Amino acid sequence: MSETTYTVTGMTCEHCIASVTEEISEIDGVTAVAVDLPTGGVTVTSTTPIDQADVRNAVEEAGYRLAA
Amino acid sequence: MSETTYTVTGMTCEHCIASVTEEISEIDGVTAVAVDLPTGGVTVTSTTPIDQADVRNAVEEAGYRLAA
Repeated sequence: MSETTYTVTGMTCEHCIASVTEEISEIDGVTAVAVDLPTGGVTVTSTTPIDQADVRNAVEEAGYRLAA
Repeated sequence: MSETTYTVTGMTCEHCIASVTEEISEIDGVTAVAVDLPTGGVTVTSTTPIDQADVRNAVEEAGYRLAA
Protein backbone atom coordinates (compact mmCIF):
# COMPACT_ATOMS: atom_id res chain seq x y z
CA MET A 1 0.00 0.00 0.00
CA SER A 2 1.25 3.46 -0.91
CA GLU A 3 0.04 6.91 0.07
CA THR A 4 1.21 10.18 -1.49
CA THR A 5 -0.10 13.72 -1.04
CA TYR A 6 0.00 16.14 -3.97
CA THR A 7 -1.05 19.77 -4.14
CA VAL A 8 -3.60 20.71 -6.78
CA THR A 9 -4.34 24.33 -7.64
CA GLY A 10 -7.58 25.82 -8.93
CA MET A 11 -10.15 23.76 -7.05
CA THR A 12 -12.83 26.06 -5.65
CA CYS A 13 -15.85 23.94 -4.75
CA GLU A 14 -17.30 20.49 -4.15
CA HIS A 15 -17.77 20.00 -7.89
CA CYS A 16 -14.05 20.55 -8.42
CA ILE A 17 -13.26 17.97 -5.73
CA ALA A 18 -15.61 15.49 -7.44
CA SER A 19 -13.95 16.01 -10.84
CA VAL A 20 -10.40 15.55 -9.52
CA THR A 21 -11.38 12.56 -7.38
CA GLU A 22 -13.11 10.89 -10.32
CA GLU A 23 -10.15 11.28 -12.69
CA ILE A 24 -7.50 10.14 -10.18
CA SER A 25 -9.67 7.20 -9.14
CA GLU A 26 -9.48 5.88 -12.69
CA ILE A 27 -5.70 5.30 -12.40
CA ASP A 28 -4.88 1.60 -12.06
CA GLY A 29 -4.20 0.62 -8.46
CA VAL A 30 -5.75 3.68 -6.81
CA THR A 31 -7.94 2.65 -3.88
CA ALA A 32 -8.74 6.04 -2.29
CA VAL A 33 -8.53 9.76 -3.02
CA ALA A 34 -8.97 12.37 -0.27
CA VAL A 35 -9.10 16.09 -1.05
CA ASP A 36 -8.67 19.00 1.36
CA LEU A 37 -10.16 21.97 -0.45
CA PRO A 38 -8.60 24.84 1.58
CA THR A 39 -5.05 23.60 1.03
CA GLY A 40 -5.52 21.84 -2.31
CA GLY A 41 -4.02 18.72 -0.75
CA VAL A 42 -4.92 15.53 -2.57
CA THR A 43 -3.93 12.30 -0.85
CA VAL A 44 -3.84 9.29 -3.14
CA THR A 45 -3.79 5.77 -1.71
CA SER A 46 -2.84 2.93 -4.02
CA THR A 47 -1.95 -0.74 -3.91
CA THR A 48 1.50 0.03 -5.38
CA PRO A 49 3.32 3.35 -5.89
CA ILE A 50 1.91 5.16 -8.92
CA ASP A 51 3.69 7.38 -11.41
CA GLN A 52 3.39 11.10 -10.64
CA ALA A 53 2.95 11.69 -14.38
CA ASP A 54 -0.26 9.65 -14.24
CA VAL A 55 -1.54 11.77 -11.37
CA ARG A 56 -0.58 14.93 -13.24
CA ASN A 57 -2.41 13.74 -16.36
CA ALA A 58 -5.53 12.91 -14.35
CA VAL A 59 -5.52 16.29 -12.61
CA GLU A 60 -5.09 18.11 -15.92
CA GLU A 61 -7.79 15.97 -17.49
CA ALA A 62 -10.12 17.27 -14.76
CA GLY A 63 -9.11 20.83 -15.66
CA TYR A 64 -6.71 21.61 -12.80
CA ARG A 65 -2.97 21.75 -12.15
CA LEU A 66 -0.51 19.88 -10.01
CA ALA A 67 1.47 22.45 -8.02
CA ALA A 68 4.77 20.57 -7.87
CA MET B 1 -41.02 37.42 -23.41
CA SER B 2 -39.67 38.33 -20.00
CA GLU B 3 -36.10 38.86 -18.77
CA THR B 4 -35.08 39.24 -15.13
CA THR B 5 -31.62 39.36 -13.56
CA TYR B 6 -31.07 37.88 -10.11
CA THR B 7 -27.94 37.76 -7.98
CA VAL B 8 -26.79 34.34 -6.79
CA THR B 9 -24.10 33.95 -4.14
CA GLY B 10 -21.64 31.10 -3.68
CA MET B 11 -20.87 30.21 -7.29
CA THR B 12 -17.11 29.79 -7.70
CA CYS B 13 -16.49 27.87 -10.93
CA GLU B 14 -17.86 26.57 -14.21
CA HIS B 15 -19.37 23.58 -12.43
CA CYS B 16 -21.40 25.92 -10.22
CA ILE B 17 -22.65 27.80 -13.30
CA ALA B 18 -23.68 24.50 -14.88
CA SER B 19 -25.62 23.41 -11.78
CA VAL B 20 -27.51 26.69 -11.42
CA THR B 21 -28.24 26.90 -15.16
CA GLU B 22 -29.54 23.34 -15.21
CA GLU B 23 -31.91 23.84 -12.27
CA ILE B 24 -33.32 27.17 -13.46
CA SER B 25 -33.75 25.81 -16.99
CA GLU B 26 -36.16 23.22 -15.62
CA ILE B 27 -38.68 25.92 -14.62
CA ASP B 28 -41.68 26.00 -16.98
CA GLY B 29 -41.39 28.77 -19.56
CA VAL B 30 -37.65 29.44 -19.14
CA THR B 31 -35.97 29.74 -22.54
CA ALA B 32 -32.49 30.96 -21.56
CA VAL B 33 -30.24 31.34 -18.53
CA ALA B 34 -27.07 33.45 -18.62
CA VAL B 35 -24.64 33.55 -15.70
CA ASP B 36 -21.89 36.10 -15.03
CA LEU B 37 -19.59 34.41 -12.53
CA PRO B 38 -17.68 37.47 -11.19
CA THR B 39 -20.87 39.33 -10.22
CA GLY B 40 -23.14 36.33 -9.57
CA GLY B 41 -25.64 37.84 -12.00
CA VAL B 42 -28.08 35.30 -13.42
CA THR B 43 -30.30 36.55 -16.23
CA VAL B 44 -33.37 34.41 -16.82
CA THR B 45 -35.35 34.74 -20.04
CA SER B 46 -38.84 33.24 -20.15
CA THR B 47 -41.92 33.20 -22.31
CA THR B 48 -43.97 34.73 -19.48
CA PRO B 49 -42.87 36.29 -16.17
CA ILE B 50 -41.91 33.58 -13.68
CA ASP B 51 -42.34 33.54 -9.93
CA GLN B 52 -39.23 34.61 -8.01
CA ALA B 53 -39.99 31.83 -5.51
CA ASP B 54 -39.50 29.28 -8.30
CA VAL B 55 -36.12 30.80 -9.16
CA ARG B 56 -35.16 30.81 -5.49
CA ASN B 57 -36.13 27.15 -5.14
CA ALA B 58 -34.12 26.21 -8.24
CA VAL B 59 -31.05 28.09 -7.01
CA GLU B 60 -31.27 26.46 -3.58
CA GLU B 61 -31.82 23.07 -5.20
CA ALA B 62 -28.48 23.61 -6.94
CA GLY B 63 -26.88 24.40 -3.57
CA TYR B 64 -26.63 28.20 -3.79
CA ARG B 65 -28.48 31.26 -2.53
CA LEU B 66 -30.44 34.08 -4.10
CA ALA B 67 -29.01 37.33 -2.75
CA ALA B 68 -32.24 39.33 -2.72
